[in-house]
Amino acid sequence: MSRTPQEKANLALVLGMFEHVLNPMDSSAVDRFISPDYIQHNQSVEPGVASLKAFLDMIKGQTPEAVHDVKRAFVDGDHVTVHYHVRRWPGDLGWAVIDIFRVEDGLIAEHWDVMQDVVEGGPNPIGPF
Amino acid sequence: MSRTPQEKANLALVLGMFEHVLNPMDSSAVDRFISPDYIQHNQSVEPGVASLKAFLDMIKGQTPEAVHDVKRAFVDGDHVTVHYHVRRWPGDLGWAVIDIFRVEDGLIAEHWDVMQDVVEGGPNPIGPF
Repeated sequence: MSRTPQEKANLALVLGMFEHVLNPMDSSAVDRFISPDYIQHNQSVEPGVASLKAFLDMIKGQTPEAVHDVKRAFVDGDHVTVHYHVRRWPGDLGWAVIDIFRVEDGLIAEHWDVMQDVVEGGPNPIGPF
Repeated sequence: MSRTPQEKANLALVLGMFEHVLNPMDSSAVDRFISPDYIQHNQSVEPGVASLKAFLDMIKGQTPEAVHDVKRAFVDGDHVTVHYHVRRWPGDLGWAVIDIFRVEDGLIAEHWDVMQDVVEGGPNPIGPF
């Protein structure tokens, strides 16, 4: 591991966003972590920061017990990868998610993600995490 | 970007695996890139290298025109992230996939992935890549 101070700061920014925005689903903290020019690649959300805030408010209303359980996170220059388990309610099998973030000038400037249902009883006894 | 020589080698190993194993779906090249003790977290494949080879042979038979189009790749220590677009046949919308690999002793030792259908006509006009 040979992370530069800038890489450590980029990783801390993204993990801070998980702690203060995504896990509490707190739209009021978005502007501390996410650029006003944020480029959103998630296929299910309209582009832009206002849409992201509305999305957070929606999921907080619908699934107030949701958790976003970070399993591993990596940084390479200005890109951060996070692998995590979303469970919408207690006992939910949930989704496996990998996000990639691009950091620019101390804020998250771009976001890609891929999500997949966690299944039970598949051919692989090793878990997805 | 401050990749160490070891990180550059780890990234090159994984991209070489895409070039020589995944894209040509060539099970005969697996052992050059993947550890015999490979830990597979993909939910749809049985564990182990023999199962991976059988899977490659199967998809090559079913979808011989499949492409695995790498969009971006990152390395942090012994972990490599690859974001790519699988298209099974010409015109296929395909899947967005993010893989995470752990490299040990010059071979891929562990693999996690998340896959999602690419959709048309969703709320976000920005593509998933």
